[in-house]
Parts: sequence; C-alpha cells; structure tokens
Amino acid sequence: MNVKHINAVCRAAKSIMSNHLGVDITAKKPSSSQGVVPSNDVAVVLGVNGEVTGQIICTLTTETAKKIVGAMMGGMTVDSLDDMGWSAIQEFGNWIAGSTATELSKEECIIDVTPPVVNDGASNFRSTKKFITVPLESAIGEVSIHISLDGKAS
Amino acid sequence: MNVKHINAVCRAAKSIMSNHLGVDITAKKPSSSQGVVPSNDVAVVLGVNGEVTGQIICTLTTETAKKIVGAMMGGMTVDSLDDMGWSAIQEFGNWIAGSTATELSKEECIIDVTPPVVNDGASNFRSTKKFITVPLESAIGEVSIHISLDGKAS
Repeated sequence: MNVKHINAVCRAAKSIMSNHLGVDITAKKPSSSQGVVPSNDVAVVLGVNGEVTGQIICTLTTETAKKIVGAMMGGMTVDSLDDMGWSAIQEFGNWIAGSTATELSKEECIIDVTPPVVNDGASNFRSTKKFITVPLESAIGEVSIHISLDGKAS
Repeated sequence: MNVKHINAVCRAAKSIMSNHLGVDITAKKPSSSQGVVPSNDVAVVLGVNGEVTGQIICTLTTETAKKIVGAMMGGMTVDSLDDMGWSAIQEFGNWIAGSTATELSKEECIIDVTPPVVNDGASNFRSTKKFITVPLESAIGEVSIHISLDGKAS
C-alpha cells in the first residue's frame, strides 16, 4: 500500500468529521494488521475500484454512532438508532466515500467508491489482504479507519 | 434493478457451486428487502463499480462455510474454520466475483468487482438501497445471494 493513499483517506475522514460534524480529530498511531478487523459494533464498508482496489472500513461503537447521527441532525440527542439513524450513518459513509475519491484524485489516483453498506452487530471482517488501521480520536468517541488498497499489479 | 443483472449474478453463483464445488443448486423464490440483510453468521461482501454500482453479499451458515471449504479442498472434513479456512471462503468470494463480472459482461454491463471481504459473526447489513435476495439450496446447505446494483443514473 502507498502511504500517500493512506494519508489521503485519513485527510478525507478528518475533513468530514471536522467540517461536517464540527468535531476536532486527533489521528493516533496507525497499525497494520492481517487477518482480522473487529467491527466494533458498527462498521461502514466502502468498496474501492479503479487504480487501486480494496476496501475502506470505518468502525465505531454504537455510542459514537448515535453521537455522529446527533451531530448530523444539528446537535440533537439520539437515544437509539432507528431506520433514520441507520440511514444517516450510511450517509456519513457516503460523505467519506466522496471525500476519499476527491483526496485520492489529488494524488493522481482515480477511483470509484461503491455506495456504503452498514454492518451492525459485533463481528469480524476477515481478509488475507493487509489492512492499515488509523484510529481517529474525538470528543464524540473514536472512529477507526481500516484501509486495504492494492494496485492492480500487486 | 435490472432482472437481467440479477439473473447474471445468480448464474455466476450457480456455476461456481456446480462446476467448482460439484454441488447441485436449486434457486428458490427471490425476495426483495429494504433495510436489513442478516449476515447468517458468515457473509462475503463484494463491492461493484462500473455501469452499475452496489454490493453483492453472499451469506451462509458456519456449517455450510465449513462444507464449502471442505469441497474446495477436495472433499475433506473441516471441523473448524482456521486462517486457511477463512482464506478459502474469501477465495470462494473471488470466484463468484470473477464469474459475476463475466456473466454481466455478457449482458453488456461492464463492471469491476472489489476483492471480497469476509464478515464473521451474527450481524446485520443495513442499507437504504433495495436488496434482492436469491436463496440457493444445495446438499451442503443454503447460500443466499443478496444483490443491490443500481445504474449510475438512479
């Protein structure tokens, strides 16, 4: 994986969190994993095709998901995630998808991102591909971005 | 969604099951759902970009997953899914991805499919997009194919 691509995805996620949701983000030390990515209760899965292919998976706790939905709705308190809440989380994924495509195009890497699908429930994502995990810490909790993007040749 | 695309994806899954794994498949009545797709313990998620975008999600029980891995390994009995087993399930997804791209190209629909990612654990996939579910019944259990493919315009 190209470190420029990792940085582009992180810039995308950070700009969504700070510009759209108004929360300050601190990126913690990235880690590399192979095999298992825990879903952390809520996961937003984006498929990437184009000059690089793979997945971007955002994982967060249900508590953080509720706070993100609340922030998206202008600061209201969300007690539980109903259909509208899940739809908002999917839209949050859409924002990250769009922003990621833009940021990667600045690195001369042209990609298409699938519409997001949300996974709800404690589960593990498994892959033989390497994932780089970047934890983004904020006042509304931690959102981890798991990135697996390979060039077509690799 | 275009019924030709649904049929192409089903042809792809059926041909993998019968040609690669040697199991006969009966497609049961498709159903349409919006909102929730249960993972049924094991789910293989494929992202689709191109003339149509969305996801193809194959769900199966752990029991069926073990039997598929056993069939892939030439008929051995698999007691539990270790790293090699999960890798084999991901490869099963790769076969379906490749076959799906080929079948859709016959319908003059050119797509790219992401490498598969496997989800392990009882969870739900949530989306505001419509999913068509086709249950495929076989001697080694049921594999359900959940398809959400939209044209760029829609």
